[in-house]
Amino acid sequence: MNTDQPQVANKPPKPISGTKRMIMAKAADLFAEKGFSAVGTTEVGEVVGLGKGALYYHIGSKGDLLYVIMTDYMATLIESGRAIVQDTTDTRERIEQLSRSFMETMFSNRSAMTVCFREIHSLNIDLQENVVQLHGDYQEIWEKTFEEGAKRGECRSVNRIECKALLGMYFYSFLWVKTNGSATGEEISDNFAGIVLDAVGIGR
Amino acid sequence: MNTDQPQVANKPPKPISGTKRMIMAKAADLFAEKGFSAVGTTEVGEVVGLGKGALYYHIGSKGDLLYVIMTDYMATLIESGRAIVQDTTDTRERIEQLSRSFMETMFSNRSAMTVCFREIHSLNIDLQENVVQLHGDYQEIWEKTFEEGAKRGECRSVNRIECKALLGMYFYSFLWVKTNGSATGEEISDNFAGIVLDAVGIGR
Repeated sequence: MNTDQPQVANKPPKPISGTKRMIMAKAADLFAEKGFSAVGTTEVGEVVGLGKGALYYHIGSKGDLLYVIMTDYMATLIESGRAIVQDTTDTRERIEQLSRSFMETMFSNRSAMTVCFREIHSLNIDLQENVVQLHGDYQEIWEKTFEEGAKRGECRSVNRIECKALLGMYFYSFLWVKTNGSATGEEISDNFAGIVLDAVGIGR
Repeated sequence: MNTDQPQVANKPPKPISGTKRMIMAKAADLFAEKGFSAVGTTEVGEVVGLGKGALYYHIGSKGDLLYVIMTDYMATLIESGRAIVQDTTDTRERIEQLSRSFMETMFSNRSAMTVCFREIHSLNIDLQENVVQLHGDYQEIWEKTFEEGAKRGECRSVNRIECKALLGMYFYSFLWVKTNGSATGEEISDNFAGIVLDAVGIGR
């Protein structure tokens, strides 16, 4: 349980320093490999080459570190998704770009996603709700894409269950998509986008 | 880690007694709520109303219990899926029935699925491979459905990435589908099947 007060989801996040990003990436790998509770801050410090004082300066508590690992990739997804919706109007293009953006973020944040799905119950209830809120914010981007697409006659009307089902297809992918497999990230993204395009009546 | 030798996936499983099923269901709820490592066999015994000797008689070790919780719902999915493919030939009907069968199993085994996705790394590597094998066996049922459908001209050819993506949509659903929500299990299943039918070129 995390008894500190990490930044809440609806405040603009503080910029994350390069050192902090490095710590987050290495700690996410450790947590994904061994489990959050099995890894102490001493081990994190050793892996990142920092003493306890310097480590705490960058990350706050171990609970803060877990929370920022779980939320940072969601913030990236949301930022990228909002930019796509702002810069693109065509529904097919939006879907293709959202698909690409998801896969890029997933490929760079696989350990963080593993940790998020496995450890969300380790967060206190307020922080769990923040994580759920971030997922809701991301879902809104896809909902808006489908709603505006349907209004413009570019796709059919998509209900909330269908939208969540399609997003689940993306979020589950971190468990099986191989970064070293024969298909490129682009091919995988296009396969996923193709399913969405078919499902919403646009077609490939 | 489980150092015993629970039944392996490719042997026909022994029938599970009513008492063992009751223990599995209550233990899965406990593990899903508190985490596998936080729950001792004493607590499991208390919740199911059995002393240590009787509990061990039914479940073997705590590791055996975890393994059977993780694999039993997969065995159910596979058995039901194989029966559907054997008894039905039409691709649309197969997809609709596979969708229904998945949702029914998911609704009855949500805690087990939570435990499986969160704790698979707690199993030793051989048992992890058995769980992966069961997922592969289940995937084969869908692959066969798509392959035979394409051969008969009832659907388009579906590649492995698309098949895994569509299955991911189903497996992720235990995280968000509400059993007490406004949509019935049938409606949810029909929404999912509709996406698959569109994605494979059959249409609704």
